[in-house]
Amino acid sequence: MTIGLSRVAGAEEDISLDELRLAARNHGLPLEALRYDVTPEGLHYLLIHYDIPHVDADAWRLDVLGRRYSLDDLRALPAVTARVTLECAGNGRAKLHPRPVSQPWLDEAVGCAEWTGTPLAPLLADLPPDAVDVVFTGADHGVDRGVEQDYQRALPVAEALREDVLLVYAMNGRPLPPQHGYPLRLVVPGWYGMAHVKWLCSVTAQDHRFEGFQQAVAYRIKQEADEDGVPVTRILPKALLAPPGFPDFMTRRRFVRAGPVLLHGRAWCGFAPIAHVEVGVDGGWQEAKLDPPTDPHAWRRFEHVWDATPGDHELSVRATDAEGRTQPVDQPWNRQGMANNMAQRVPVTVRP
Amino acid sequence: MTIGLSRVAGAEEDISLDELRLAARNHGLPLEALRYDVTPEGLHYLLIHYDIPHVDADAWRLDVLGRRYSLDDLRALPAVTARVTLECAGNGRAKLHPRPVSQPWLDEAVGCAEWTGTPLAPLLADLPPDAVDVVFTGADHGVDRGVEQDYQRALPVAEALREDVLLVYAMNGRPLPPQHGYPLRLVVPGWYGMAHVKWLCSVTAQDHRFEGFQQAVAYRIKQEADEDGVPVTRILPKALLAPPGFPDFMTRRRFVRAGPVLLHGRAWCGFAPIAHVEVGVDGGWQEAKLDPPTDPHAWRRFEHVWDATPGDHELSVRATDAEGRTQPVDQPWNRQGMANNMAQRVPVTVRP
Repeated sequence: MTIGLSRVAGAEEDISLDELRLAARNHGLPLEALRYDVTPEGLHYLLIHYDIPHVDADAWRLDVLGRRYSLDDLRALPAVTARVTLECAGNGRAKLHPRPVSQPWLDEAVGCAEWTGTPLAPLLADLPPDAVDVVFTGADHGVDRGVEQDYQRALPVAEALREDVLLVYAMNGRPLPPQHGYPLRLVVPGWYGMAHVKWLCSVTAQDHRFEGFQQAVAYRIKQEADEDGVPVTRILPKALLAPPGFPDFMTRRRFVRAGPVLLHGRAWCGFAPIAHVEVGVDGGWQEAKLDPPTDPHAWRRFEHVWDATPGDHELSVRATDAEGRTQPVDQPWNRQGMANNMAQRVPVTVRP
Repeated sequence: MTIGLSRVAGAEEDISLDELRLAARNHGLPLEALRYDVTPEGLHYLLIHYDIPHVDADAWRLDVLGRRYSLDDLRALPAVTARVTLECAGNGRAKLHPRPVSQPWLDEAVGCAEWTGTPLAPLLADLPPDAVDVVFTGADHGVDRGVEQDYQRALPVAEALREDVLLVYAMNGRPLPPQHGYPLRLVVPGWYGMAHVKWLCSVTAQDHRFEGFQQAVAYRIKQEADEDGVPVTRILPKALLAPPGFPDFMTRRRFVRAGPVLLHGRAWCGFAPIAHVEVGVDGGWQEAKLDPPTDPHAWRRFEHVWDATPGDHELSVRATDAEGRTQPVDQPWNRQGMANNMAQRVPVTVRP
């Protein structure tokens, strides 16, 4: 196959109509919605590569290693509900310089829902002993950089067999909405969004590494167009602040009144639990107070009281996980804008 | 008050980060979702001027002409469910030349939900005889062009007293989600979205025209910055096609196979019923087949079989209402990009 290159915007190039078209159909979490422990479905971020496929759930079957399951078959299996924070691997991409041209996320490609489904591992009991990768195929179909494809991603066998990997048919207690993968999606807690295959149709195994487009080409961290790069896997630590006060419509600049301001937000990480979160005011960092942890793969709430003094300020926030990973203040660049976790910045005007 | 001017982009100016920030938090209807008679809530377009306010529904009261109603009070009144198509008055703005700088919609700021609530008119029985405008105030608060404000819009008394104007507490059979105005919003069938005030707090009457920012400044059709212009009211006729085939991820160009292709979509108008819809292929127009009308303010489905021949084509669609209003192929320009209903264009590559 001939694969077109990913494009990097010119140094002074603003957002293109192509990027705008993606931003208008996909969408992020409006950051004030960080107030919810569980994100309402219509506020959860969405990244849909092609179109939302129309799947007739009655006729639909999931093929797992050649065995076929109806939705009722899957619902009859043991059910698990887990709160899992999902984040798009391209989150933050539009803040890089130069900017990789793709879905132009700023900070907001995240959400935390309550997913209900059945563990995948028991359905993989017949996995061949020489299996290397488990491949997941969705019903969504399109072209990317010249390659026509069904959306496909793989997990190494050890990851696919984790007991917390789920075949999910409900979100926040209701059937999956069309845009989140109806009738069935994969949820791989801790991994960036590209792993959580939606509109899932089949699960197969193979004795060699899966080299499909979304695995070998798209979700890679690399500096040069022609290098293989490193695959994107788990979510790096990140914290986001619910911007305080009220906004200007166009610039989204925030306005607050001087005095104590309760800042709050959420922090998450796919490698290790969040250990601490710092809130920065004009570059000086202070420890935030963390709420008790809840589900192992759900985000953790933090808060911090800021004594706001009149004038223009820049708030910031950064998380550190239990293994010492901290968010960078200046983001290392990569060509496709993957796994960015640069600390958020929120400009605020404080009025007397 | 000193009001900043609305800005118009330079002729060659691409989308700015401010516009992108708006596009990432608001969102349109992914056009493949035109297949649904009733838009699922998370796919319905959203335009939120400031932040989604957090409203405690137990403590919340609606003040109507000095009388206070709890949510239970309103639910105890006669309930009506109506299917109503809403469209943002700024839809299509980003396709104008030069481009007004604001929420940068292309085609997709539309949706059709099933709204349940109680008619407003009976609650206006005590309207003073000299009332001119009925003013609706939401809980959303922010700054626009230098003016700090609660979101407010007014209706002339005759419109406010229409029996189909509703105080709405449910969308598609469930309580309003936060982003659609929880716990209560106004629905004014036939009018562009700015009239359907969300997070509604109070309804007042006054004996003179309401001159608030969103009425007298923001939602106006005008050519020059310093003219008063004409207020935006009802929705002009429009049709949108569900783009056929499958897309390229980045450009959204469509690919279909040669032969008969079933094209379908929806058409709507706030002035008069849709009378006919034409589908254009490379500039030649053909009449589409309309499904029977449903609710008077819901969109109407159309379909047309296109005999697709190999090569690159441009599909188009335009609606005409029962009073002879037809969508323009070239959009008349206005400074704030309001009430645009230029015919949609969909580039398609047909493969042999």
